Amino acid sequence: MDVSDLGEFGLIERIGARLPPYREDVRAAVGDDVAVLALDGESYLLATCDIQVEGVHFLRKSITAYQLGRRAAAINLSDIAAKGGTPEHFLVSLALPGALEVSWVEELYDGLGEESARHGADIVGGNLSRTDGPLVVDAFLLGKVKVEEVVLRSGARAGDAVLVTGWLGGGAAGLALLEGGGAGLSDEFKDVLERYLTPTPRVGEGRVIARSGRATSMMDLSDGLGSDVGHICDESGVGVRLFADRLPLSGGVGSVAEVTGRTDWMLGLEGGEDYELCLTVPPEAEEEVAAQVEEETGTPVTCVGEILPREEGRWVVLPDGSEIPLVARGWDHFGSGQ
Amino acid sequence: MDVSDLGEFGLIERIGARLPPYREDVRAAVGDDVAVLALDGESYLLATCDIQVEGVHFLRKSITAYQLGRRAAAINLSDIAAKGGTPEHFLVSLALPGALEVSWVEELYDGLGEESARHGADIVGGNLSRTDGPLVVDAFLLGKVKVEEVVLRSGARAGDAVLVTGWLGGGAAGLALLEGGGAGLSDEFKDVLERYLTPTPRVGEGRVIARSGRATSMMDLSDGLGSDVGHICDESGVGVRLFADRLPLSGGVGSVAEVTGRTDWMLGLEGGEDYELCLTVPPEAEEEVAAQVEEETGTPVTCVGEILPREEGRWVVLPDGSEIPLVARGWDHFGSGQ
Repeated sequence: MDVSDLGEFGLIERIGARLPPYREDVRAAVGDDVAVLALDGESYLLATCDIQVEGVHFLRKSITAYQLGRRAAAINLSDIAAKGGTPEHFLVSLALPGALEVSWVEELYDGLGEESARHGADIVGGNLSRTDGPLVVDAFLLGKVKVEEVVLRSGARAGDAVLVTGWLGGGAAGLALLEGGGAGLSDEFKDVLERYLTPTPRVGEGRVIARSGRATSMMDLSDGLGSDVGHICDESGVGVRLFADRLPLSGGVGSVAEVTGRTDWMLGLEGGEDYELCLTVPPEAEEEVAAQVEEETGTPVTCVGEILPREEGRWVVLPDGSEIPLVARGWDHFGSGQ
Repeated sequence: MDVSDLGEFGLIERIGARLPPYREDVRAAVGDDVAVLALDGESYLLATCDIQVEGVHFLRKSITAYQLGRRAAAINLSDIAAKGGTPEHFLVSLALPGALEVSWVEELYDGLGEESARHGADIVGGNLSRTDGPLVVDAFLLGKVKVEEVVLRSGARAGDAVLVTGWLGGGAAGLALLEGGGAGLSDEFKDVLERYLTPTPRVGEGRVIARSGRATSMMDLSDGLGSDVGHICDESGVGVRLFADRLPLSGGVGSVAEVTGRTDWMLGLEGGEDYELCLTVPPEAEEEVAAQVEEETGTPVTCVGEILPREEGRWVVLPDGSEIPLVARGWDHFGSGQ
């Protein structure tokens, strides 16, 4: 059997079974996007990484070095945001073709540095290698969070509201446009392209949510809401009901859906790359948390569903009122994609 | 200008000039192999990473998955050892061809896990991606060291003795054998091959040296003594004189030197991949530190040179007594290599 038969999550499961035992200070590890490590009783150290491979995650003809730098930083910042953490230090590994222009690497670092600095993080190290194959950018990010503020994936309870920050579907719509060529786009389309190329990590929003103390679980939306909410269900031992007509869609998603022959809510539900936060809160806290985030960051928070007891399953209510099982159709890095 | 014109260290310099300012807790960062980050006044957090690219750092026909896993762990452990630190947590990023056997990945993790566990570290996360190009293993390691025990590269003073742990030249000799095919080797040759394929990080030795409080600088030998000692000279603002006939050579290096038409001390001086520690101590502490390391770990420590005032330059005394300038000929990941 080869790795593409098994898929990303199957492979992670196989690997997990072979790892040495965790040290005593480990609170969350393989299977989460972020390792949560006890420091001193007051704080957790957070550690995450995300590898971006040319030809799989990006094409050099479709994204500038500066945009790629911002994007590589953003997707790691988003992981720290999802724990309610404060990002601190990046290390960046690069595998670079020898014939690459030095200015390309400088622009990559301009993007990495700008996005890092915007969220208070710096770049303290890394490693450079030549490659004879595709360019690789692998960014590692360290952050911290107070013990009483950390939000894991495992605390969602039946009855909780499922909230998302910002807007969905823009990442997937932007990717669809890029794959279709992306040339000569109107401004409306440029917005979703921007959402895909340089997503905005919700670091400030994550901090507000963490400080509120009301979130029972949280994660960031990298693979798509329908897929990612499944991780919260798995870790929390619950079911979920999402409402397709409540998804807050990015401007332009409807037009892209039309052009590409999909429905807009499918892009919002199944498309990845939005890097919004998905969280659960007890129903009585829904308005308070949404208002706090909006007031302090300007980012809207929308209720898109409810947590069910595990035995009631995972469902999506379509705009016509019919209900279908929620099947993870998100991004599998070894599968056929979204 | 492309990156192969500029070379690895030139590129690091160019990148360094474009980074956002460091946060207040940074004690060492880009330019060192390890980021040193203040935690709580008592300890430093250490963070390092090392990317291994197929075709550049290894060939799948020449190294087993298990050996590659051990090696990838070892070279990061060696960086933490060079700071006197205790390794704690690995994150591992992999870019894998889709057609790779799952058992290959499992064996890689067996090697990673075994080498980690041997030194008290665990594996708490990572990231998996498909690639259409060469396989990439990028391991990221966190460690800690007490503030009063950390050893940097910047404290060497004129008159200090230059010491190395263990044996030199084995890594380069092993690599030379592999490049020559490596088949049908006698046991003597198998030893140096082992030195290259699965180097032994000097974690215990680094801890003894750190606790002694006598080392003024330290680093691990990944690129070759002649090249790496130059980093200590750069950071400490000193010169150095090494003695070619004092280099403690691995068994088999002489025979490989003969076969490959080099001299044995050249393999010891210029060859990389030994992952021994190079440290400086005041001359009066030389015997004490060497004895302590040998007693507690069984690893010999050899004096191979002396630190000079900066203006006296960097020299190697050859076995015939003549003195030549020390020129870095170590491994440059974008240059023509060794």
